[in-house]
Amino acid sequence: MSTAPDHQSAPIPILLREDHEGVVTLTLNRPQQFNALSEAMLEALQTQLDALAQDEQLRCVILAAAGKAFCAGHDLREMRATPQLDYYQDLFRRCSKVMQSIQNLPVPVIARVQGIATAAGCQLVGSCDLAVASEEARFAVSGINVGLFCATPSVALTRNVSIKRAFEMLVTGKFIDAATAADWGLINRAVPEQELDSAIAVLSAQIVARSPTAIRYGKAMVYRQKQMSLGDAYDYAADVMARNIMEHDAGEGIDAFLEKRAPRWAPK
Amino acid sequence: MSTAPDHQSAPIPILLREDHEGVVTLTLNRPQQFNALSEAMLEALQTQLDALAQDEQLRCVILAAAGKAFCAGHDLREMRATPQLDYYQDLFRRCSKVMQSIQNLPVPVIARVQGIATAAGCQLVGSCDLAVASEEARFAVSGINVGLFCATPSVALTRNVSIKRAFEMLVTGKFIDAATAADWGLINRAVPEQELDSAIAVLSAQIVARSPTAIRYGKAMVYRQKQMSLGDAYDYAADVMARNIMEHDAGEGIDAFLEKRAPRWAPK
Amino acid sequence: MSTAPDHQSAPIPILLREDHEGVVTLTLNRPQQFNALSEAMLEALQTQLDALAQDEQLRCVILAAAGKAFCAGHDLREMRATPQLDYYQDLFRRCSKVMQSIQNLPVPVIARVQGIATAAGCQLVGSCDLAVASEEARFAVSGINVGLFCATPSVALTRNVSIKRAFEMLVTGKFIDAATAADWGLINRAVPEQELDSAIAVLSAQIVARSPTAIRYGKAMVYRQKQMSLGDAYDYAADVMARNIMEHDAGEGIDAFLEKRAPRWAPK
Repeated sequence: MSTAPDHQSAPIPILLREDHEGVVTLTLNRPQQFNALSEAMLEALQTQLDALAQDEQLRCVILAAAGKAFCAGHDLREMRATPQLDYYQDLFRRCSKVMQSIQNLPVPVIARVQGIATAAGCQLVGSCDLAVASEEARFAVSGINVGLFCATPSVALTRNVSIKRAFEMLVTGKFIDAATAADWGLINRAVPEQELDSAIAVLSAQIVARSPTAIRYGKAMVYRQKQMSLGDAYDYAADVMARNIMEHDAGEGIDAFLEKRAPRWAPK
Repeated sequence: MSTAPDHQSAPIPILLREDHEGVVTLTLNRPQQFNALSEAMLEALQTQLDALAQDEQLRCVILAAAGKAFCAGHDLREMRATPQLDYYQDLFRRCSKVMQSIQNLPVPVIARVQGIATAAGCQLVGSCDLAVASEEARFAVSGINVGLFCATPSVALTRNVSIKRAFEMLVTGKFIDAATAADWGLINRAVPEQELDSAIAVLSAQIVARSPTAIRYGKAMVYRQKQMSLGDAYDYAADVMARNIMEHDAGEGIDAFLEKRAPRWAPK
Repeated sequence: MSTAPDHQSAPIPILLREDHEGVVTLTLNRPQQFNALSEAMLEALQTQLDALAQDEQLRCVILAAAGKAFCAGHDLREMRATPQLDYYQDLFRRCSKVMQSIQNLPVPVIARVQGIATAAGCQLVGSCDLAVASEEARFAVSGINVGLFCATPSVALTRNVSIKRAFEMLVTGKFIDAATAADWGLINRAVPEQELDSAIAVLSAQIVARSPTAIRYGKAMVYRQKQMSLGDAYDYAADVMARNIMEHDAGEGIDAFLEKRAPRWAPK
């Protein structure tokens, strides 16, 4: 297990990294602060995400958090210390870059959610490709409770949840429980807390068992085509799919299927 | 309680307005006609919405309806009396302006729905930011039953409900019940008829308890960013959020949170 | 019952066509191959869809499949035989054209789904306007299992199902059952297998009972406005609706409604 550097040289690593056969688990590690996204935490995340984006061996990322809570959003005390417009613009841009870097990673990112996921913490869940939560987990975009509308979290939320549900969460700041989050599509499923690790392990194992090449062809395409007109989306997706099938793994995968044997993917 | 003017100078006010501490309730008041959206009703609504858009004290709007039905859509008899293309183009444009004016109001608009909400009446529900309905309420885009496809209602419907569900409603004209509407995201929830007023009161009270400044920063942003690419949406939302946090209420809200006391929002 | 020509002059018709009072049922008829979308099948479908697009008597299309499965996607053996980029680009473009031709037909297309609908077979379901499935039916975008990410199927899937659900299906290749597909909006409903034909008959009868003119005004509009900004969508829909109401059927339909009698639609 290695740890990401903390730019404040704090003795406690605020972001843990564990590598296991292509699956990297990043663990937010400020449990006493409910893993708030301090500047140091945002920088540590960005540094790791930038490194992972270049890692050709990478197969899957799990975004986890230490302690009782997943993430309570921005660090309010730190944020309040520099009440300047340009500081805030820069801060929210950096946070938005982290969120987009998750989506821009070439492999699936799974959120492992326990406790509360609020404000930018809820946005983290929305920004991951997949999310599995404890049945005890709760979700809110609660900035409105402190007079700060969750504007950037709404970008992720409204791309996961239908508009009236997202709107109610945003203007009331109220929590929804994990079953509701699953029903609304914010997470893939809720499981008993003691089964959370095994549910995450099953999902990451399913991804790792697939062709790494095919997964990488797919992830960026899914989000990019979603923003296109139907005709443009099909032109683009047809070209991506043609390039994917020219790769070794697709030929091998189809042959294996036709020969009723297990495929042997090319090592990355 | 004041009443909106009826341009036909009808003795009965067709749109009632009640003001209560920043919460304005507009009540469609043609119960015998199932609150059909006659030209006079559209004009009365537009006049009120235009006035409310300028009202800096406004915190929340409730769109209600008198009698057994919420709204049965256009006034078919009136509509049939002037069978001219330019008349209809103008009529549907005026109706579409009313719907967009609801979304363009700077504060949340809650639909209070009982009985039926059909055609442009269903569109009204879709155009509000939030909707709470009686469990007895029913919803349809029923123009197809009279040979008139609910084109403008489909704009609101397909922005609330997934495509196959919206399509079935549009081509069959069939009703869905309130539980289905809640399950599909067309409304926020269905409650027993006798609890409808209290459910609306709870929701509007939650909104009024939040910072009026923050709510106003948020509402327009939510809809605007939804139409943007992810990158543009984040750039825009980050800037809105930075401006929001520079306001008194956000500083006060964060301080109050850190000091574990109730915030004191600036009066609007 | 007529049959579509098979460009390979195969003795068995691979696509069956049955006409019944404006309702055309196209039945994929390669049951031993799980109705795989071979080049011949794609060409037969395109030929029929092109003909139907010109058929002014057409009211509704049912897309069905013979045998145990609805459709297992592309014909892997055939696809593997010509491992050339330009061949694949052309193949996926042709398949994408079939999918878009379904949406571009001027009348509703209902998928009748039994057994499995996988990869491009699942895309067919997503591309139809409406879908009713047997409770035993199962759905997957399973290309990832053979190293080929379901890129073009993702275009249809992500326009029916929310993003985290679609993403999980795409990267795991796992099946969802019919109840889940209905819950997620990929299909309109699941019914017991023995009630599938009657459920399809009820739905197509509802469509056929409506004004053919109004249905034709509506279908293209629904999809086109969905891709527009709210303001543009309303301008466009208001104009479509004004033109629709100038037609005989809308006048007749409204008059019939006001006179409490059944409407008599103009014959097409």
